[in-house]
Amino acid sequence: MSSLTFRQKLGRCLSSNFFTRLVTTLILLNAVTLGLETDAAVMESHGLLLRAVDQAILAFFVVEVLLRLYVSRLAFFKSGWNVFDFVIVGISLLPSVGPFAVLRTLRILRVLRLISVVPKMRKVITALFSAIPGMTSVLSVLLVIFYVASVMTTQIFGASSDPAMQQLYGSIGASMFTLFQLMTLEGWSQDIAGPTMALFPASWAFFVSFIIVTSFAVLNLFIGIIVDAMNLMHEEERAASVDKAHSEEMLAIHDVREEIAALRRDLQAARK
Amino acid sequence: MSSLTFRQKLGRCLSSNFFTRLVTTLILLNAVTLGLETDAAVMESHGLLLRAVDQAILAFFVVEVLLRLYVSRLAFFKSGWNVFDFVIVGISLLPSVGPFAVLRTLRILRVLRLISVVPKMRKVITALFSAIPGMTSVLSVLLVIFYVASVMTTQIFGASSDPAMQQLYGSIGASMFTLFQLMTLEGWSQDIAGPTMALFPASWAFFVSFIIVTSFAVLNLFIGIIVDAMNLMHEEERAASVDKAHSEEMLAIHDVREEIAALRRDLQAARK
Amino acid sequence: MSSLTFRQKLGRCLSSNFFTRLVTTLILLNAVTLGLETDAAVMESHGLLLRAVDQAILAFFVVEVLLRLYVSRLAFFKSGWNVFDFVIVGISLLPSVGPFAVLRTLRILRVLRLISVVPKMRKVITALFSAIPGMTSVLSVLLVIFYVASVMTTQIFGASSDPAMQQLYGSIGASMFTLFQLMTLEGWSQDIAGPTMALFPASWAFFVSFIIVTSFAVLNLFIGIIVDAMNLMHEEERAASVDKAHSEEMLAIHDVREEIAALRRDLQAARK
Amino acid sequence: MSSLTFRQKLGRCLSSNFFTRLVTTLILLNAVTLGLETDAAVMESHGLLLRAVDQAILAFFVVEVLLRLYVSRLAFFKSGWNVFDFVIVGISLLPSVGPFAVLRTLRILRVLRLISVVPKMRKVITALFSAIPGMTSVLSVLLVIFYVASVMTTQIFGASSDPAMQQLYGSIGASMFTLFQLMTLEGWSQDIAGPTMALFPASWAFFVSFIIVTSFAVLNLFIGIIVDAMNLMHEEERAASVDKAHSEEMLAIHDVREEIAALRRDLQAARK
Repeated sequence: MSSLTFRQKLGRCLSSNFFTRLVTTLILLNAVTLGLETDAAVMESHGLLLRAVDQAILAFFVVEVLLRLYVSRLAFFKSGWNVFDFVIVGISLLPSVGPFAVLRTLRILRVLRLISVVPKMRKVITALFSAIPGMTSVLSVLLVIFYVASVMTTQIFGASSDPAMQQLYGSIGASMFTLFQLMTLEGWSQDIAGPTMALFPASWAFFVSFIIVTSFAVLNLFIGIIVDAMNLMHEEERAASVDKAHSEEMLAIHDVREEIAALRRDLQAARK
Repeated sequence: MSSLTFRQKLGRCLSSNFFTRLVTTLILLNAVTLGLETDAAVMESHGLLLRAVDQAILAFFVVEVLLRLYVSRLAFFKSGWNVFDFVIVGISLLPSVGPFAVLRTLRILRVLRLISVVPKMRKVITALFSAIPGMTSVLSVLLVIFYVASVMTTQIFGASSDPAMQQLYGSIGASMFTLFQLMTLEGWSQDIAGPTMALFPASWAFFVSFIIVTSFAVLNLFIGIIVDAMNLMHEEERAASVDKAHSEEMLAIHDVREEIAALRRDLQAARK
Repeated sequence: MSSLTFRQKLGRCLSSNFFTRLVTTLILLNAVTLGLETDAAVMESHGLLLRAVDQAILAFFVVEVLLRLYVSRLAFFKSGWNVFDFVIVGISLLPSVGPFAVLRTLRILRVLRLISVVPKMRKVITALFSAIPGMTSVLSVLLVIFYVASVMTTQIFGASSDPAMQQLYGSIGASMFTLFQLMTLEGWSQDIAGPTMALFPASWAFFVSFIIVTSFAVLNLFIGIIVDAMNLMHEEERAASVDKAHSEEMLAIHDVREEIAALRRDLQAARK
Repeated sequence: MSSLTFRQKLGRCLSSNFFTRLVTTLILLNAVTLGLETDAAVMESHGLLLRAVDQAILAFFVVEVLLRLYVSRLAFFKSGWNVFDFVIVGISLLPSVGPFAVLRTLRILRVLRLISVVPKMRKVITALFSAIPGMTSVLSVLLVIFYVASVMTTQIFGASSDPAMQQLYGSIGASMFTLFQLMTLEGWSQDIAGPTMALFPASWAFFVSFIIVTSFAVLNLFIGIIVDAMNLMHEEERAASVDKAHSEEMLAIHDVREEIAALRRDLQAARK
């Protein structure tokens, strides 16, 4: 007579090492078949096989997600990783004919499940997301500077009817893209500052200031993350080492006090 | 009978959470209307409404700044953030007709008030400014190198009558801009080193040295900021932890001494 | 009668300072001759001499590796550096005529032996390799993102028959190269985003996201290495300093306890 | 009757705050006049005045260096900064006519004296130089990689008679410049990898590997400097804080021991 219900047995089975390795292998296999599907020559010769393998793996994933949903019931949706798996498998089931043909290309997103299945990669993403809250203040300041600069460049440089100016600063969207390019420093002189300075000679001051200010802000973003990461990892170990020394010393001092107390008892005994 | 004067009540009201949230909302709304004003199609259909909203929000800001000026009187100008708000709102009141039409574009600077109103963003800017003093020495060295290099390139490369050389190194200003571009590495080979080396073949040595020296100087600027930031944040926590352990140990040793003193008193009592 | 076998004597000789310096000098000399061989004018005038020197140095290296193999026997292959030397010298012995002419160019790899001979450079490479395990998780995530993005761009942008699109995204290989270029930010706007956005206007969202995500991932790679390096070097010294203070204090407290014990003995003696 | 010799008095005078400020002012003034000399229009109107001021300041510097040489005698050359001042002033005295006209442009180097005169800037340069020893190992490895790669690219890509290949890889010097450009990522795809891959399709592997390897090496260079800087500045403060706590605790324990000794004396007195 088994002491575990069928659901519990299934749950153990789904979280077993063997099953995890099986899923990882299937994801990697699917990554290969989806990659091969982009090659026209391969598709002509082995297209049917590739599609069949793809359908079989998809079927496996659908069953897997449904089983995990059955095991955990509504608690399934409490984990962001489960929701991630559910959405990615769900997308693959949508009809991909007619206007939805673009959805076929989203099948490759299934390979992202690798990140949710392999614990080490999962940890990396968790760490990346945990770094975001510490960045919001600097990111907000950067966004305000970007928005103000893009409205100004749209009003000043975009007012020119020159086609180059219209392409670079024709709308707020165009200006923001141009300013993003300026921030990455890519072709800032030849593609952006050059044509603008030809019409607005004093604009060099704006470009140089914007580059220095955004570089400085991005640098501070980086430093913030570094300092946070150091604090987190470093502090723990440091505290542990100081605390160990501290508690050993406190223990030794406690022993001293007990010995003095014993001495006192001896003395009181001697007085009698 | 109220124990607070009208001025004190007003001061409390202006620094209340509700009022801060109201100002933040109005700034965001103004950011949206100023953004929409850059779109010709929207201006044609809703131009009057946008302008009216803009005027209303400006009126609100003028009253707000005047009230805060009334509350704090001359102490108002002691805070850099107040001066910042005052100047930004003041600019919007300047006549923007005729030759001053460009001032209209400065209205978007009002959105920068978001930084002075939201405490977290204010903190970011304060931190950025507090990093500047530690950078002045390295920045001065960088500036001296830039100035010397720009005078030299103007005298040597700018002496050539070649139009490309004239554009790159025609004056100290042009040379400084070229050297700034060189420092950002943007197109340094194709746009700058290429044409120069065609006329001055040995100039590669200058370009390679300048890139290495300025990269190294900028790197040291960054390291300085990182080390300062680490020292500031790290030291505090570390010191706290060591100090806590230290004071606990000192207290324990103090107890030991008191117990020894008590023991001594006992002994003296026994002698009698 | 010597107490050392010939093999032991030879081993000492091969690891002596003099021999190391001799090998270093020969590698540097070989670097110079191989460099001069690339100059057609020099080859015409001193070609025979250069080839003779090269052959003589190669002969020396072959004998050296064989002797070290004789001294250490199979233990020789336990050190990665020995395998490295063996392979590099071995390559030079392969016939370099006919279809293998390209192997001649691999002779310059012998200069890499400098790294295995000079201890300080050896240490740098060891440190670089020891940093790799800590990077595998982030690198795997980056690789998954790259693969998924390259399949998607091949399917979406590569589906266009436009020659520019075919060159950038014609196959998964082409897409990966393009995405690598995107990650280095080199010409991302003019060479990649520009032509793509001309056909797929909404693709700016993909480019901006990809740049931000990969920059953030690469940044985390760097931070991971920095934090690891700091932990390694910093912790050691810190621990040493805390531990020294700690053991001195523990010793002092131990002395106190011994003195209390002595006091107790005195007291017990007094009671008798 | 003065107790100081004339030489000692002069030495005090030359190192006084007033004199340092005077020299700083003259260097800044000279920087301005040398900058103005690059402007043809200014030279035509005020050329004689500028030259006169320049000659007067040079005369002052010559006298200053000679006086400092007289005060310190041969010890003058022990300080690198003095040698720096001596060489820079010396260059200005060389005849700058005929073939030496280029030496005139070196007059601007005098502005670099600002760095040797202002203590804070002096400190920056000292710090930069002190970082170099820790970088030599990584720099040597980088140099070996560069040399090997440049010989290989010269032999393989430079063997092609294509003019673009000749320009990029025609000689070891050209290859090294190209590889330096590759390392800075500037136009690596369009200017370097593009034309090379047109002739050698498999060369993408070399370019991608070289970029990754050199980026990783440069990164390690940076991390080394950061870790060193942190160790230096951080350790000092940390050690101080731990040491202060430690010596206070040792003192307290010492007091405890003295009190126990007093107690023992009391006890011995009681026994009598």
